[in-house]
Amino acid sequence: MRAGAAARVRRALALLAEDARPEAWITLRPARELLAEAAVTDARTAAGEQLPLAGQVFAVKDNIDVAGLPTTAGCPSFAYQPRVSAPAVARLAAAGAIVVGKTNLDQFATGLVGTRSPYGAVRAVHDPARISGGSSSGSAVAAALGIVDFALGTDTAGSGRIPAAFAGVVGLKPTIGLVPTDGVVPAARPFDCVSVFAPSLRIAETAAAVMAAGADTATTRTWPADAPLAASPTPRIAIPEASALDGLSDTWRAAFADAAERLRAAGATLVPVDIEPFLQAAELLYGGGFAAERFAAVGAFIAADSDDIDPSVRGIIGGAEHLPAHRYAEDLGRLAQLRWQAMERIEDCEALLLPTAPEHPTLAEVAADPIGVNSRLGRFTNFVNLLDLSAVAVPAGTVDGGPFGVTVVARAFADRVAADIAALFAPEPAADSPDSGWGPPGLPLAVFGAHLTGQPLNSQLTRLGARLLRPVRTAAHYRMVALPGTPPRPGLLRVPAARQGRSFAGELWALPPAALGRFLAALPEPMTLGRVRLDDGTTATGFLCESHAAVESPDISEYQDWRIYLHHHDTSAAAGSDERSPV
Amino acid sequence: MRAGAAARVRRALALLAEDARPEAWITLRPARELLAEAAVTDARTAAGEQLPLAGQVFAVKDNIDVAGLPTTAGCPSFAYQPRVSAPAVARLAAAGAIVVGKTNLDQFATGLVGTRSPYGAVRAVHDPARISGGSSSGSAVAAALGIVDFALGTDTAGSGRIPAAFAGVVGLKPTIGLVPTDGVVPAARPFDCVSVFAPSLRIAETAAAVMAAGADTATTRTWPADAPLAASPTPRIAIPEASALDGLSDTWRAAFADAAERLRAAGATLVPVDIEPFLQAAELLYGGGFAAERFAAVGAFIAADSDDIDPSVRGIIGGAEHLPAHRYAEDLGRLAQLRWQAMERIEDCEALLLPTAPEHPTLAEVAADPIGVNSRLGRFTNFVNLLDLSAVAVPAGTVDGGPFGVTVVARAFADRVAADIAALFAPEPAADSPDSGWGPPGLPLAVFGAHLTGQPLNSQLTRLGARLLRPVRTAAHYRMVALPGTPPRPGLLRVPAARQGRSFAGELWALPPAALGRFLAALPEPMTLGRVRLDDGTTATGFLCESHAAVESPDISEYQDWRIYLHHHDTSAAAGSDERSPV
Repeated sequence: MRAGAAARVRRALALLAEDARPEAWITLRPARELLAEAAVTDARTAAGEQLPLAGQVFAVKDNIDVAGLPTTAGCPSFAYQPRVSAPAVARLAAAGAIVVGKTNLDQFATGLVGTRSPYGAVRAVHDPARISGGSSSGSAVAAALGIVDFALGTDTAGSGRIPAAFAGVVGLKPTIGLVPTDGVVPAARPFDCVSVFAPSLRIAETAAAVMAAGADTATTRTWPADAPLAASPTPRIAIPEASALDGLSDTWRAAFADAAERLRAAGATLVPVDIEPFLQAAELLYGGGFAAERFAAVGAFIAADSDDIDPSVRGIIGGAEHLPAHRYAEDLGRLAQLRWQAMERIEDCEALLLPTAPEHPTLAEVAADPIGVNSRLGRFTNFVNLLDLSAVAVPAGTVDGGPFGVTVVARAFADRVAADIAALFAPEPAADSPDSGWGPPGLPLAVFGAHLTGQPLNSQLTRLGARLLRPVRTAAHYRMVALPGTPPRPGLLRVPAARQGRSFAGELWALPPAALGRFLAALPEPMTLGRVRLDDGTTATGFLCESHAAVESPDISEYQDWRIYLHHHDTSAAAGSDERSPV
Repeated sequence: MRAGAAARVRRALALLAEDARPEAWITLRPARELLAEAAVTDARTAAGEQLPLAGQVFAVKDNIDVAGLPTTAGCPSFAYQPRVSAPAVARLAAAGAIVVGKTNLDQFATGLVGTRSPYGAVRAVHDPARISGGSSSGSAVAAALGIVDFALGTDTAGSGRIPAAFAGVVGLKPTIGLVPTDGVVPAARPFDCVSVFAPSLRIAETAAAVMAAGADTATTRTWPADAPLAASPTPRIAIPEASALDGLSDTWRAAFADAAERLRAAGATLVPVDIEPFLQAAELLYGGGFAAERFAAVGAFIAADSDDIDPSVRGIIGGAEHLPAHRYAEDLGRLAQLRWQAMERIEDCEALLLPTAPEHPTLAEVAADPIGVNSRLGRFTNFVNLLDLSAVAVPAGTVDGGPFGVTVVARAFADRVAADIAALFAPEPAADSPDSGWGPPGLPLAVFGAHLTGQPLNSQLTRLGARLLRPVRTAAHYRMVALPGTPPRPGLLRVPAARQGRSFAGELWALPPAALGRFLAALPEPMTLGRVRLDDGTTATGFLCESHAAVESPDISEYQDWRIYLHHHDTSAAAGSDERSPV
């Protein structure tokens, strides 16, 4: 099904030759080098090696190190030759993906416009009079043009989301620390992330999963044991109260309302909230002490005053030289308060839906007011990393003849929740492809009765952040009884070796480790959890039942599926209360 | 057993009248007010109310708000009258403890000496020529003199530990954020903690547990789902390589070696490590951008230049006014690197043992070199909050005729690990008193076989941070079989209602929620976990067994205890390998 690496590289080269947005690139690898690497990849695949990203090509924002290519950060006089690739890049390459080249950016990743670069202002894909957005301008454009399957950006203020919205692609910004930022030129170090652009959410998730998997570094954080594996099927989603959208044009407000309505139609409950604490946090990124992070990162270079430094960038970074340290301290305290207030606003929601950008400026508008336009663009993005949140920017229709994008913001480490909700905008025919693997590690739990999808206790799993992996069947070693009580539940028991058992249909779910512990702790007798043999020869933790309870319960093994038994015996039971007992 | 509140207050008043260290106090509550509050507490207790701290009195460092008393922070001209008590104080009072008064401190909690206060230099309990240590000078002395059962301090650089060492009491410094710092005058806000001094580790733990329990605030963090509930019975404990102790006198080095040897004798493995990254982090607290936190906290007041500001304190806080913000940013980056290096050093250890202080200076030595002596005192304490660690300072013998103290440092949220290891220095006859409750919440697991204490799979529990709660017995509804395999394991099964069962002896453990999930996920068949009825009428998650496996296994119910069965049948089995299977 998947094209070979050589074919994919040739397609990339052909698209590059069309020259639609040459300003998107700072360094391209030579064609012969790409083809040689593709040949090696194809040979490894042909030899049976499993390379999860074989046949995919990607672009790397030019503030992320790729061994063998210069890192310019958008400033020729700053360029250096990295000895090794950033871990994020190295992990993708180890998984079989091929780097095509390095992409243009707002210099030192300081900007949301894509015009602050001596390598040229990057133009929007659909309209060359409009900006691509930044700072990851070239990466978003390269992904949107299909030259690459995905592209790496970085995201501090919104650099991984604004260009996604303007290019009509997905922009996945993981929680700070899930992807190492070693080998990345810092913008504002504590708030920097590596992000992914892709036309396909599934591919963005897969790339993020590959980049997040590996040995810890000084810049990484690990998934906590209760990080959710999935959004709930009927999530509560916060949206801004109308007043927070006053600055948007009628068409942009309508586009956002349409996007919100799509979530509601998909089963979400929309909850208007006051997002003022989020907006106030956004203003701290450039408006106070944190601007000094940018001076700490590259201030010494800026002070040396090369003539290829963008004037806006010079102003922002150089202007932070004399900020007092107590201002940084005060802003950290203020931020802690705002984080608390912001989290209270969305306390009972799984995510917050926002327009990614409030408008799509032209190159001329940016040239006329480079700081003002940039500042407006960050209204709905600047707070995300400051408040330690995860986000997925996703295309959601069109506006004024161009793409319109929304961002699903979720809590730190609720990255897969954000992605699942974003997927409601771009449902992909993914049912028969393997899960992207993006998200925290889970522990399996096989269920055969009231916890199955659609059954009355299923929400006990979904409330705990569980994810449905697949339907399963037990090995033919079991019998099933109908236990008394409400809601009705089956009891699954293994038969002694000498006797004939049957195979039963169920579902395999994954739960966060802490959720599995809490689920077990709330389990009522006579249910037990043990090791269940499946018909594919594997085993999984799953529901069993104490034998004493089976003595007087009717055997229903002949149905081989609790749902079929219910269908024949008591269809009202399946609609029973969801709230009767803790488990 | 416990004295009434009125008797305890009268004893406190009598000890205060002895006037041993009057400089320890800034504000004392009137005797009639204390006696009136004690009468109310005793009446509530007599009426059957359960107040966990009824009959205990405590002192509060005068940078923590107590409604009705001024907060001076050691500076009369700074004093204000708080409307409400800090949540830490309010929770203790709600649990029945009575505030006796507010204690002296190094002004604005800036110091480790206890001499930087216009209310007087606080003298050590055992030798009036020596300093009490600071900044929580008065609280440590009040606890050591027995005036109070415990006393609150604050701890940023070591203010909750140095005075504990010099007074010969326990100083418990929780992980940042477990106890809210709302209502506390900040010293360096992101690194501030409320701490507890007490002659008894058990009482310090109980007070910490009460202060950590309550609604979240903007300054709190919650226990993660995999925070350990206990130290392992045979912990690996890091100690500094000899070179890091070069600055100590021979007697101090010998005292530390004796303390380490006590841990080894108690079953610990001592692991000499290079603590250079810890020491380098320590120097960042006052030597760089973080000093600006102190200016952010009270700099405006210092600038107003009251004549009651201590000259050293004025120098430190005022001197931070013009530090540049990029220095703060650079130090945050440096600290992240040092944290990574430091955690690598102790990667395979549960804790790090250090001398709390490197020497015990006289008042005269401090007067001669107030900054230099203070700086030396922080060598083994300054890094703890910067690196986000927990710590318990504990008396460990004597040195030069005074108390000698060590500190057990553990990871963030491994607070109970630090406390358990500290308890090895001060074993208390606590077997029949309830657990202090200090530490993260756990989930119960009843075990009846190979996971019992001393049995071959017990280390599967202790490795997961489990804590033994108590011996238990099942209700008389079960039977037990001896399962085949190695190591030998019993299978517990509930008998049908119509039949007679027996009661079995076991142990109730508590596990971190994530650990319980992982334990379940690794459980081999035919073991299951379900709800086990205990003989006290309660139930707990516990070990059961699939019935098919019991069919051909011998019934051993008559022994009513797996250990008794083993004793009669196969004593070699109990010494079997610990490492045979994942569970």
